[in-house]
Amino acid sequence: MKGTLGILGGMGPLATVDFMQKVIQATPANRDQDHIPLLVHAVPQVPDRAEAILAGSDEPLTWLREGAAILRSAGAEAIAIPCNTAHYWYDDLANHIDVPVLHIVDAAAAQLKSAGIINGTVGLLATKGTVDAGVYQNRFEKLGFNCRAPDDALQSENVTAGIAAVKAGDLRKGRTLLETAAITLAQQDCLAIVLGCTEIPIVLTKDMSPAPGIGYLDATDALARAAVDWHLETTKTAKTG
Amino acid sequence: MKGTLGILGGMGPLATVDFMQKVIQATPANRDQDHIPLLVHAVPQVPDRAEAILAGSDEPLTWLREGAAILRSAGAEAIAIPCNTAHYWYDDLANHIDVPVLHIVDAAAAQLKSAGIINGTVGLLATKGTVDAGVYQNRFEKLGFNCRAPDDALQSENVTAGIAAVKAGDLRKGRTLLETAAITLAQQDCLAIVLGCTEIPIVLTKDMSPAPGIGYLDATDALARAAVDWHLETTKTAKTG
Repeated sequence: MKGTLGILGGMGPLATVDFMQKVIQATPANRDQDHIPLLVHAVPQVPDRAEAILAGSDEPLTWLREGAAILRSAGAEAIAIPCNTAHYWYDDLANHIDVPVLHIVDAAAAQLKSAGIINGTVGLLATKGTVDAGVYQNRFEKLGFNCRAPDDALQSENVTAGIAAVKAGDLRKGRTLLETAAITLAQQDCLAIVLGCTEIPIVLTKDMSPAPGIGYLDATDALARAAVDWHLETTKTAKTG
Repeated sequence: MKGTLGILGGMGPLATVDFMQKVIQATPANRDQDHIPLLVHAVPQVPDRAEAILAGSDEPLTWLREGAAILRSAGAEAIAIPCNTAHYWYDDLANHIDVPVLHIVDAAAAQLKSAGIINGTVGLLATKGTVDAGVYQNRFEKLGFNCRAPDDALQSENVTAGIAAVKAGDLRKGRTLLETAAITLAQQDCLAIVLGCTEIPIVLTKDMSPAPGIGYLDATDALARAAVDWHLETTKTAKTG
């Protein structure tokens, strides 16, 4: 079906559900039939992405390619990956498939710009794999943003531990740990805090704030909005073309 | 991958997300990789199921068959359909595919029995299509249960209108309308109230109660538990076989 979005998910399972919910919320719809057709590949057996990057392994890429190929043959016309860390393999994946793969970092930058933040320093809460690999930094720099990540101690004791708590279902502990990291970054001249790991917006939400005037930018939500824009653009072309 | 569950969803989109969340919650897991591999076909353009039944049309069956075939070729080894009304076409679908299709009514009956309700009268909140087609009544009767559905006025003014409110995102209105219907049924000697439409457990939850000693039986949750049981059984056989 025209405009079918493929979701390469399962990293982790709850993040996929959160992303689907955000796609549904971002879609202008009055009835079931107005919603976007979705195909979802949520196979959580993909090896841990952050661990693979830190160990110099490309093992997750094989899984990502296989999942993308399955989505493609099932009829997906674009692919979204609700896992920031997996974007480390974005080029290797996007260059081997004949449909657009939406990039979560581009989507986050677009949402910052819509919120009136057109350049400057933003804080980054993400896995150590995402931070060390420069998934955000490289792409953000070209778009006019600097990224400030937590120092090693804060990254390990609050961000890594907070993400693990969310994955284990201890949302209260995860929220406390991650919020402390966000407040610390917000005090270091950041214009916004990018929630660059799909587990984080499960506990830190847009109606919260780490400091007066500083907001959270939910990368999962940004990707959902980019997916809806892609769908509306594609089906509009189909209707008029 | 062994034990991959196919979800034939999109009816409606939020019900699919609710079902996935319930599968994740019902799975014994300590990390991403312990969760069930899922393939999801969520194409909400399937014509309205309840309207089709009332109009005598089998149009949704064509969509269901196509979705099931896509899930099958993508690698699904069993199929769950988080839409009660779509089970009207269960036999036509299950007889044309070579993997098990879990039945939501059997799953609901199994959960009633685990809750100690082994026979007797239960109330049914479902779409008019599900009620009129006897989706629950026929199967429940063989399993020892009688179904009591609301009378025509209550069905139309509270159940149909309540489901439509949930689909339109007005959860407060949906909850009020549906809870009134549940309370009325609970006063008519029902041992439990089966929430037999996937939109209903979005607003009426297991921690609520329509009358002292009377609980809600969430058919979506029952199907999720049946899916987890199927997965554990299948992968256990694979490991020992």
